Parts: sequence; C-alpha cells; structure tokens
Amino acid sequence: MRKLLAEFFGTYWLVFGGCGSAIFAAGFPDYGIGFAGVSLAFGLTVLTMAYAVGHISGGHFNPAVSFGLWAGGRFSAKELVPYIIAQCVGAIAAAGTLFTIASGRTSFIIDDAKAANGFAANGFAALSPGGYSMQSAFLAEFILTMFFLLVILGATDKFANGKFAGVAIGLALTLIHLISIPITNTSVNPARSLSQALFVGTEHISQLWLFWLAPILGAIVAGLIYKNLLQDNSEA
Amino acid sequence: MRKLLAEFFGTYWLVFGGCGSAIFAAGFPDYGIGFAGVSLAFGLTVLTMAYAVGHISGGHFNPAVSFGLWAGGRFSAKELVPYIIAQCVGAIAAAGTLFTIASGRTSFIIDDAKAANGFAANGFAALSPGGYSMQSAFLAEFILTMFFLLVILGATDKFANGKFAGVAIGLALTLIHLISIPITNTSVNPARSLSQALFVGTEHISQLWLFWLAPILGAIVAGLIYKNLLQDNSEA
Amino acid sequence: MRKLLAEFFGTYWLVFGGCGSAIFAAGFPDYGIGFAGVSLAFGLTVLTMAYAVGHISGGHFNPAVSFGLWAGGRFSAKELVPYIIAQCVGAIAAAGTLFTIASGRTSFIIDDAKAANGFAANGFAALSPGGYSMQSAFLAEFILTMFFLLVILGATDKFANGKFAGVAIGLALTLIHLISIPITNTSVNPARSLSQALFVGTEHISQLWLFWLAPILGAIVAGLIYKNLLQDNSEA
Amino acid sequence: MRKLLAEFFGTYWLVFGGCGSAIFAAGFPDYGIGFAGVSLAFGLTVLTMAYAVGHISGGHFNPAVSFGLWAGGRFSAKELVPYIIAQCVGAIAAAGTLFTIASGRTSFIIDDAKAANGFAANGFAALSPGGYSMQSAFLAEFILTMFFLLVILGATDKFANGKFAGVAIGLALTLIHLISIPITNTSVNPARSLSQALFVGTEHISQLWLFWLAPILGAIVAGLIYKNLLQDNSEA
Repeated sequence: MRKLLAEFFGTYWLVFGGCGSAIFAAGFPDYGIGFAGVSLAFGLTVLTMAYAVGHISGGHFNPAVSFGLWAGGRFSAKELVPYIIAQCVGAIAAAGTLFTIASGRTSFIIDDAKAANGFAANGFAALSPGGYSMQSAFLAEFILTMFFLLVILGATDKFANGKFAGVAIGLALTLIHLISIPITNTSVNPARSLSQALFVGTEHISQLWLFWLAPILGAIVAGLIYKNLLQDNSEA
Repeated sequence: MRKLLAEFFGTYWLVFGGCGSAIFAAGFPDYGIGFAGVSLAFGLTVLTMAYAVGHISGGHFNPAVSFGLWAGGRFSAKELVPYIIAQCVGAIAAAGTLFTIASGRTSFIIDDAKAANGFAANGFAALSPGGYSMQSAFLAEFILTMFFLLVILGATDKFANGKFAGVAIGLALTLIHLISIPITNTSVNPARSLSQALFVGTEHISQLWLFWLAPILGAIVAGLIYKNLLQDNSEA
Repeated sequence: MRKLLAEFFGTYWLVFGGCGSAIFAAGFPDYGIGFAGVSLAFGLTVLTMAYAVGHISGGHFNPAVSFGLWAGGRFSAKELVPYIIAQCVGAIAAAGTLFTIASGRTSFIIDDAKAANGFAANGFAALSPGGYSMQSAFLAEFILTMFFLLVILGATDKFANGKFAGVAIGLALTLIHLISIPITNTSVNPARSLSQALFVGTEHISQLWLFWLAPILGAIVAGLIYKNLLQDNSEA
Repeated sequence: MRKLLAEFFGTYWLVFGGCGSAIFAAGFPDYGIGFAGVSLAFGLTVLTMAYAVGHISGGHFNPAVSFGLWAGGRFSAKELVPYIIAQCVGAIAAAGTLFTIASGRTSFIIDDAKAANGFAANGFAALSPGGYSMQSAFLAEFILTMFFLLVILGATDKFANGKFAGVAIGLALTLIHLISIPITNTSVNPARSLSQALFVGTEHISQLWLFWLAPILGAIVAGLIYKNLLQDNSEA
C-alpha cells in the first residue's frame, strides 16, 4: 500500500509539474520558460521523486517503465496492474488540479485550454506541435522510451554507480523532452498522455492508442535487449 | 547560536540570489534570464547552502519547512520560533541589500522597484503575474509546498539515498518556480514573501496572509502524510 | 561484444539526442530550446549513458576520447579500431533515424535538412554558423577536445572523486557546446561529424578532415599532458 | 609544480569557457545562450575542473578563493603568491586564445571586441551592463564573493558531505552570474577581470582595482566569519 501511494504521489507530481509548467508558462511568450524549461521541469519531477520515494516504490511513475522493468526481469508481473492503476489515478488527479488552477485565471475562457495549446496533451499529424506524421511520432516515441529504459536498467544495474540513478534517469527525461516536444509534445508515459487527453477531448483521445502502444513496446524491447545483450549475467 | 547564524545566512542567500536574479534581470528583456533563469537561481541558493551549512542547522531557510519538519516529527517545537526569527531577519536583510544595490542604478527612480515589477513580491488576483485568482493562488501554494516537504522528508529519510538530498531539494525548488511564477511569482516560503512585501508597500502586505497560511498548511499536511502513510516506521 | 554494443548504443544516443534536439527545435524559433538547450542535450546524452553503460564499456562514445585515453595509458591500442567502428556505426544509424523522423514532417521538402540548417553538421568558413575561419575552427576544436580529455582523465583518476565522473564529463560536453556552437556547430567528436555530413552532402564531407584531425590531436596532447605532467605516478 | 599546473589549466578553462561563451554567443541574439547560458558556462568550468584537478591543487582557479581559504585557515600563506601567479598566467593565456579565435571571424573588425561588448570585461558606472554605480558594484562583488567563499568553506568542511563540494561550488558560481551579470558583468575573480581588461584597454584597466579589492575583501571576511562563527572547532 505504501508502494502504491508513493507511485500515486510520484505520478501526480510528474503531471502537475511537467504539464503544469507548460500550461502556466503559455501565457508568457517573452519571459516564459520555453521548451527547455518544460523539459527541465519534467526531468526534475522524476529526479526529485526518485530521491524522495524511490526507496519506497522503486520510483516508476510511468506504466511504460513498469512494463520495461518487468521485461528486464526487475519487476514482478503481479504488481504491474496495481502500479499502473496508481499511476493513472495520480496523473488524472494532477490534471484535475491543473484544470482547477487554470480556471481561476481572470482571462480564462472555458475552452481556452483546449483551443489554445491543447492543455499539455500529446498528439501526432494535425495535433503534432511541428506537424509530424503518425509514423514519425510512433518511431520517436518508440526509440525514446527504449533509450529511457536502457538508461533506467543500466543505471540501476548492480554493477553500476547506482546512487546516481536518480540524477541520470531524471535528466534522461529532460533530454527526451529537449528532443521531442516538437514531434509529439513528448509522452514516453501513457499515464501522462491519458491524464491530459481526458481534459481536452475527443480528438486527442482518439490518438491515445499510440501513446500507450509505442512507449510500452519500446520499453519492452529495451528490457529484452538489456537483459539478454548488455547485462552481465555471470553470477546468475 | 551557530544554527541560527546558519539559518540567517542561508535565508539571506535565498532571497538575495533568488529575488535578486529576478530584480536585476528585469532590465534585460532580450538577453535576460527569464523565468527559467530565476527558477534555477532560487533552486541553486538552496542547493549550495544545503551543502554549505546543512550540516550545521539542517538547512531549512524557510518557516514552512521548519513547520513541516516539526509536523513530520523531525524537528523540535521549541526550536521553531528562534529558527523562524533567524530566517525572517536574514530575508529582510537580503531585501535591504537588494534595495541598496538597485538604488545605485543610473536610471533608478525612487518608486521604480514598486511600479515596474513589484520588486520580487508575491501576489494574487490583480498582483498575480498571470492574473490568477486568490483561490488558484492558495491551491497552488498549498500543493507546491506540500510536495516540497514530501521531497524534503523523503530525501532525508533514513532509508533514502541521503547524500543527494541537497540536490533533490534544491532542484525541487527550481521545479516549483518553473511551474508557478506565472501564478503567484512563487512563494512557498513565508520569510521570502515578507521580505519583499516590506519594501513594496501596502497592497502586497495586505496579501501576505496567504503566503504564510497556504505554505505552512501545505507543509504540515505533508509532514502528517509522510509520517503516517509513507514512512517505514517498522523500527520505531 | 557487450562493450561494442554499449559503445554502439551510447554513440547512437549522443547523435540522436544531441543532433536531434537541434534538428527538431529548428522549426520553433520562438519557443525552441536555442543553443543552450542543444548544449544541455549533448551533455545529457553522455551523462545519462555514462551511468547507464559506463560500467560496461567505459563510456567513450567518441573516437577522440578513445584516442585520448589510449595516449593517457588508460586504453589498449588493440581495442581502438573496434571501438571506433562501433561508434561510427552507432552515429550513422542515429543520423538515419533522425532523417526518417524528419521526413515525416508535413512541411518537409527533400532538401530541407540540407538547405535550411545543414542537418546538424559541423563546418568552418562558409559553413561555420558564425563565419569563423578554418584556423579558428581548428584551434577551437583542438583546445576544446584537449580540455574535454583533461576533464575525463582527471575525473577518472584513481585519486579523484570518481563517482562524479559521469556528471563532470557530461556537463563538460554541455559547456563545450555553450562555447563553440557559433564557431563550428561543435564537434569534438569525429563520429558525430561523420554521421551528419553523410546525410548533408559534398561540401560538409570535404571539411570532415578537420573534425577528425583537430579533436584527435587535441585528445592525444591531453593524454600526454595528463600522464606526464598532472598524474601522480608515485605508485607506479 | 603539479599544483601550479593544475591551477593554470583550471583558470585557463574558467576564462576560456566562461568568457568565451559570452564572446562567441554575442553574434547570435536570437538563438544565443543569453545571460543564463553564460552563467551556466562559468559554473560548469569550475564544476568540471573541480572534479578533474581538485584532487591535485584544491581547485581554486581564483585569487580571491586562495585569499579566502587562507583567511579561513585552510591554505598556507607561502603558497598564496605562486597560486595567484599561476591563475593570472592561465587567465591571460585563455584571453589570448579567445582573441585569436575571435579574430578569425569573417566579419571581425580589429576593434570589434572592444567596441561591441567589451570582450567579456567587468565594469561599473558607464561600463556596467545595466548602468550600476561604483558603490552598487562594490557591494555586489563584495557580498557575492563573501557568499561564494561561505559555500566553499562550508561544502569542504570536514563535517560536510564533501564529495558534492564540486557540484555545490560550481553551481554557486552559476548562481552568482545569474544574479550579477547586469551589475558588473560578474567578476568575483580578479584573475578573470585582469585577463579581459588587458585585451580591451584603458577604461576597463582603470576600473580593475575594484575587481581585485571587493572580491578579495569579501573572501577574507567570509574566511573569518566561517572560521570563528560557523565552524565547529570542538576538536581543535
């Protein structure tokens, strides 16, 4: 139960901080934090929570990460579903809080979040910030989540310099956003995509499948690659 | 006494560095550091002082942090008042230094700091950078301070990877600013709010109650949540 | 074989993340990440992979680094060629992936990458972002790679605080980009230069010699300086 | 001798990287790195060299730091002069290299560095980026160097979490630049100020006294404060 609560808070923080920084900064084109600031925010949500509750739940905060760790032999199948539920509930709760705060803006119009910048939802083709196709979006999300998991699996390897894993993993998420906000607004996290789409509406919901499929596939491939090709299994 | 001096210097540095970076950069809209740079500055004041004097006083630099650690069972009630006084004195001294330096600008007009950008004071409604309501401001300050304390309590937990606490806590403050400068100019720290309002005047002073109440409440809630729901009390 | 695979993935990530962040951000002049974001991205590719697979291959991801470590007596001559091949293959694979993703942009024209910003290729004189001469470019690449290797050799010295090497080395690459994107678009890595030039064409290919020669020479000089002048050889 | 060489390379890197990032980026107002990027660059020069050669020389790279450590009882008086000479020689050599590279720009005019942005020299009053008076500049340089030394002395205290000192000290320099580039272009380092002024000319040279006096005084005050008021001398 402590584990699930830790995943709830961690994923809440990821969505509240990462998506929140994008949503609130959108009103300040000149002094705002831009894509780089949003990238930093996403990474820091994970870095901070990894050191805060990583010792409780392992610090996944992301269904794709749970799948990847399972494929890599580091996480039990029976914990997968409860973890993913805790993550999705945390993400949706955060999105609700963001919506409440955003509604308190004097200039807030009811559809503002949807029309202006789509809350902080992910999308491809017409909903891609830079107009990237479904194929490009899928490839980007697949590759990026695969490398995210390689970093996670490698940095927490028993032969690795594991105390730095929180830094490496958090900043890996920053890097991933620096690369791919123009392509899909960056997901690599199905719970994060779900939480925003629910508040934005039909179009984004109809694209949600990609932001579950591509990250989870990429994560599973990474788990298999790491376990079979990179890991030193000599003591097994 | 060494502890109180450490809190004095730490809070001085937090206000001088965090608020100072905002005040001095305001004259450079094109090359200036923007909200992201100010966010980084606030976080680095805490990161640097945590490693510098954290071993002396614990490195609170913030009345809400002291309250939250007390609620979490990590700080004694009888030290609360002296710590908060040291923090407020340090913050006000820093604000005075900032005012002195700012006054030496050739183009400085006596009310410049007040009129132009409100020194670096916190505010809601008409005084919110993005025009966010009192309710939104309260919710944001409450949630952000609550998570700030969850990071602090978690990262310094005896089961955690505690040597990185200074990095995690400092960068948590950067993240908090990346999210909420548009909403309230970001407080999560009553001493910081007090110090700026005193130099800006009546309007900001009349809003100070929120920047004491919301952060301290959020911190106390976090203390109770962490102690009762997240902490492993098995050895108690 | 695990070592070569680690170098393949690491160099893939360096090119995909570093060059990719530049290529995709180019469509967003206002909110994009700018030179600072690209600098951060390059550094984070190395920081993250150093903690992920550094324990497997040593984490070079760069032919110049392999040469410099060899000159400094830390790497065997017989591993040089396989490492460099793995690095170049990884870099080219990443460039191919970037080209595929970029091709999926609605507004993509077949020569867009070449014409607009030269993919993320390196160049001097007419191909230098800031119009710097061949001599300036050579000097900059030489000095920067030399210091990159001094940081690598120093931070991994047996007397050094070696657990932080990944942070120091990754952020050294960020720093190097902060300095020299205006001069050559920053190489200090022959594999990275090769991978981009292949997709851009003749002009950049004709300048590739400099981005192999200057970094490798700088790295070798650093190896000799460190081994003979800075290293404490007292226990040898 | 190894120590002096380490100080030479470290200070060379500080000036080459910190001042260089400012000088080369000046040609790119839109995509350039701005004050925040320059701040990051300065901090990373110290962070990287602290881990690279800190174990050799202690990693001062700054006459004010050597004075402050001496005042704090951590550095011997007889090493002061050789260290400061090595630092100044390194700084001037770096400034010469920067001048050589900058001269290779196609659009370079012989007085360009001087006229346009004063190389990366420090100044007050008419030479202050934001037009700050001599008094403001002195106060800012004094306070900032004082806190820089408090961070250095605290983070390297035997009771502190000393492995992170390089991170804390490097990022303290980033923070200091985030605050004060608008005021004096930020010195807190007499060798850095000297090196730039020599290449810029009379006006800046006539202001050099302030950038030696204020930082060294601030550093000495910090040394005395830390040793007498903050340090736990119980085992002495």
